[in-house]
Amino acid sequence: MSRGLVNPRTPECEVNPLFSDRWSPRAFLSSPLTEAQREALFEAARWTPSCYNDQPWFFLYAESEADRALFVKPLVEKNRQWAKAAPLLIYVLARRHFSGSERENRHAAFDAGAAWMALALQARQLGLYAHAMAGFDRDLAAELLKIPLDRYDILAAVAVGERGEADQLPADLAALEKPNERQALPSVVQAGRFKG
Amino acid sequence: MSRGLVNPRTPECEVNPLFSDRWSPRAFLSSPLTEAQREALFEAARWTPSCYNDQPWFFLYAESEADRALFVKPLVEKNRQWAKAAPLLIYVLARRHFSGSERENRHAAFDAGAAWMALALQARQLGLYAHAMAGFDRDLAAELLKIPLDRYDILAAVAVGERGEADQLPADLAALEKPNERQALPSVVQAGRFKG
Repeated sequence: MSRGLVNPRTPECEVNPLFSDRWSPRAFLSSPLTEAQREALFEAARWTPSCYNDQPWFFLYAESEADRALFVKPLVEKNRQWAKAAPLLIYVLARRHFSGSERENRHAAFDAGAAWMALALQARQLGLYAHAMAGFDRDLAAELLKIPLDRYDILAAVAVGERGEADQLPADLAALEKPNERQALPSVVQAGRFKG
Repeated sequence: MSRGLVNPRTPECEVNPLFSDRWSPRAFLSSPLTEAQREALFEAARWTPSCYNDQPWFFLYAESEADRALFVKPLVEKNRQWAKAAPLLIYVLARRHFSGSERENRHAAFDAGAAWMALALQARQLGLYAHAMAGFDRDLAAELLKIPLDRYDILAAVAVGERGEADQLPADLAALEKPNERQALPSVVQAGRFKG
């Protein structure tokens, strides 16, 4: 953790701190990433496993001022407020069909989610943070970014950068600027048959 | 890497080796995981980010001989051949609706994929390997494991354990027992608008 924030998360057992120290801040410094940092994010994602190794993920990113202005437009207002400061914005896409085929890939979202997680963890490895957003207008994103929705779904928008200070945020967002909690393991893990 | 296998993967830039050293073997030793190892896998997954922090993932696992015999039944024959040796089998589920709501969560598969990736990477952290499979009969899995498909989708089966030797596998699978490759980054990463 950094910037005086105490991580309130208490892992229930020992795990690589990449997992429990990863969270989704809203306050980002505008300092740009180096090219090597940006490449490393996508490189980590590239090695993700996928159904038939079909690698259905696709990343559009914005670093220039003009591209970032375009990429924030589809975000809902509450996301745009903070995400506009981040030096790197990404849309995570998933190809709907298997490569060179008309066959629908019903695992594409699952696989793209795995690739996003690799990117988020590699961000922490670099001292950066990544924050994924579901709050955006998919049709507007497709229109502005020329994404063919018959071939690709748009699954998430992501902001990446160094953490800023909570007081750069509007008060309602500043109050949220800390790692959130999770359900305990017994709520999501069971041995044997499903017991609900 | 271990057991004399040279990893043919050449990362295009420096990334945490957890990413490039993670791959999906089929030869597993039957040695059971410790309880701490199994807990750490799910603990890593637990800290995954999700839409509205709704944590739609759910894991069913099998360690006992009886549970493993049940969990391998829905696998396609080619997966059952090798996965039956793994000491830990998991089905990754995703809750279809937001908690306490009738509203469909269209991000559940993406979020569950992210949680699966955390589990796979924590496996490497422990010196273990995780191999996800799409090849299983979803309806049979739901029937045998009492999974209500109206509330949960079943997204992947996973085998976890220590790596075994390729020669324990049938010849056709032994030939596949090495890390596979990926497309180069420019195939899946673009700046600005989508160019196809």
